[in-house]
Amino acid sequence: MQDYFSVRWMNGVVRMLDQRYLPGKVEYRDLAYSHEVASAIRHMVIRGAPAIGIAAGFGLALTAIHSTAILPSQLFDELQHSAEELRKSRPTAVNLFGAIDRIFARLKGIQDMDVKQLKALVLSEAQAIADEDIQMNQRIGRNGQRFIPQTAILIHHCNTGALATGGYGTAMGVIRTAHEIGKKIHVYVDETRPRLQGARLTSWELKQLDIPHTVIVDAASGYFMRQTKIDACLVGCDRIAANGDVANKIGTYNLAIVAYAHGVPFYVVGPMTSMDLSITSGADIPIEERPESEITQISGKRITPEGVSAANPAFDITPAKYITAIITDAGVALPPYKISLPELIEK
Amino acid sequence: MQDYFSVRWMNGVVRMLDQRYLPGKVEYRDLAYSHEVASAIRHMVIRGAPAIGIAAGFGLALTAIHSTAILPSQLFDELQHSAEELRKSRPTAVNLFGAIDRIFARLKGIQDMDVKQLKALVLSEAQAIADEDIQMNQRIGRNGQRFIPQTAILIHHCNTGALATGGYGTAMGVIRTAHEIGKKIHVYVDETRPRLQGARLTSWELKQLDIPHTVIVDAASGYFMRQTKIDACLVGCDRIAANGDVANKIGTYNLAIVAYAHGVPFYVVGPMTSMDLSITSGADIPIEERPESEITQISGKRITPEGVSAANPAFDITPAKYITAIITDAGVALPPYKISLPELIEK
Repeated sequence: MQDYFSVRWMNGVVRMLDQRYLPGKVEYRDLAYSHEVASAIRHMVIRGAPAIGIAAGFGLALTAIHSTAILPSQLFDELQHSAEELRKSRPTAVNLFGAIDRIFARLKGIQDMDVKQLKALVLSEAQAIADEDIQMNQRIGRNGQRFIPQTAILIHHCNTGALATGGYGTAMGVIRTAHEIGKKIHVYVDETRPRLQGARLTSWELKQLDIPHTVIVDAASGYFMRQTKIDACLVGCDRIAANGDVANKIGTYNLAIVAYAHGVPFYVVGPMTSMDLSITSGADIPIEERPESEITQISGKRITPEGVSAANPAFDITPAKYITAIITDAGVALPPYKISLPELIEK
Repeated sequence: MQDYFSVRWMNGVVRMLDQRYLPGKVEYRDLAYSHEVASAIRHMVIRGAPAIGIAAGFGLALTAIHSTAILPSQLFDELQHSAEELRKSRPTAVNLFGAIDRIFARLKGIQDMDVKQLKALVLSEAQAIADEDIQMNQRIGRNGQRFIPQTAILIHHCNTGALATGGYGTAMGVIRTAHEIGKKIHVYVDETRPRLQGARLTSWELKQLDIPHTVIVDAASGYFMRQTKIDACLVGCDRIAANGDVANKIGTYNLAIVAYAHGVPFYVVGPMTSMDLSITSGADIPIEERPESEITQISGKRITPEGVSAANPAFDITPAKYITAIITDAGVALPPYKISLPELIEK
């Protein structure tokens, strides 16, 4: 049973589960200011493309409710300032930018509201982003079922569950829907170095949902594909370009190539809020470089010799050719994605 | 400069660098009995196919020098007993079995020696295995140069340096020879989960040899192949089958598939003692399963939730089709390996 959540608005603060300490410690933090939210995103208190989008929306809501602005233009200035800071927190997932843009778009059309009404509007729009995400995830879960046989062995990379979203999950949403409707599922969980989101978070969620699973090191996926019939690989996404190239957690690309070599279907799963058709191909998606210490240290203990350097791209780009289908809340896109993705958006 | 060694015979004991504590602590252990050597191999105080072969040989030498046998047949019985225990220590690398077989083969032809002479023979044969390994590695280093351009960016998996061998290295032997003769080398070091031999050991060796390098997570290799022109991947081997399939550290297979997808040459590097032409294909090579705790815990700290299970194959099989060439001390084998490997053995 799921009795946790990644982020919620609660009596004027943003409550967040600090995912850095999972699974050892379940500790929530209450954030009262937008700059605290930006810092929490940057330091990965919260992570997962949909979840950081929701968090950014609530960040703006915090700025709104604390504002002492008298004129709407003053409130806008304050929101702009917070938005700028939030946009800088992480560069790759488009959901973050999408949530901020959506709130500003909502405000833009309004002419006759006073500051109080505008403040309420920011909060209600932020809350709508959170609420809709859960519903989108549940639709995603159902839309993915056509690809999941009655008995299925799956490989999953990173974390895409309730922790990464508004409360249900994307790739994990497909997995848990399958489990809920009685399919017999076993998940090989990529541990997902360097931050071990698979070993720490996905196994924690799967355990609470009673879904059978086995943790493996990321580079063992090919070994298991040779040993066992793997029915599908399922991954989330941080940004989907117009040609179907996908930015997702580092290691997704290797998994996709290995799946392709074994004829194992490779599904990218995400809400429409992860689409960015303004971007032609994956080459134009900015990839975040994170600190070397995520590789050179584990749990605060140094692994490599002193002075050794590491390169730590947080994401990679998987070219469309390796992706069997993209599963979204609006339906399933099949290749060629240049045609199928715009069709989904028009739905 | 290299001022360390993995294993040596020293005044009647076997001195071993305890690789489990590197790079944090450089601590040697003196082992006086064969069963201690078997235990050290099993617990990976020492690892690397050539190094554990050498250690097993010295293990038999310890049994010989401590023996109180009066008759040669008694000495043989004691050696057989030790050999059995050593053979059980790790199953995948053929060098271990090869070293033991070689010592018994040496003894087999002898008719007229007394116990004292036989004891000396065991030790001298064990020492010969160690000495020859360094020379083989140096030949390997030279034989590999035709594949390494004057300026080269390489990816290396696991550890194949002085620590894994008699004192020079296999894949690392090719890298250090290139460096020694003035080629400009940069090595991307796969950290090599779960035991982090790349992050802990290879970076430690490269640093002492002043060879520029960057540690990466294993699943990032594809990212770097897309970003940068990688000239070659270099890996060691634990056993080479007659058809050119290769058993090596888990993750080798994924790296080979990813290299193939990018057109990056993939070289397997090892001494002829890693050949096992009695085995038709990789499917017949036994793969060791190691404890789950190597994945669920890092540096003694639990990563996954309690009760979550992990699967931990220590090796995988890379099919011959992904291997550009096999570089050995006897020369280079090119596909088709069914023809080129027997030719190398005849040399």
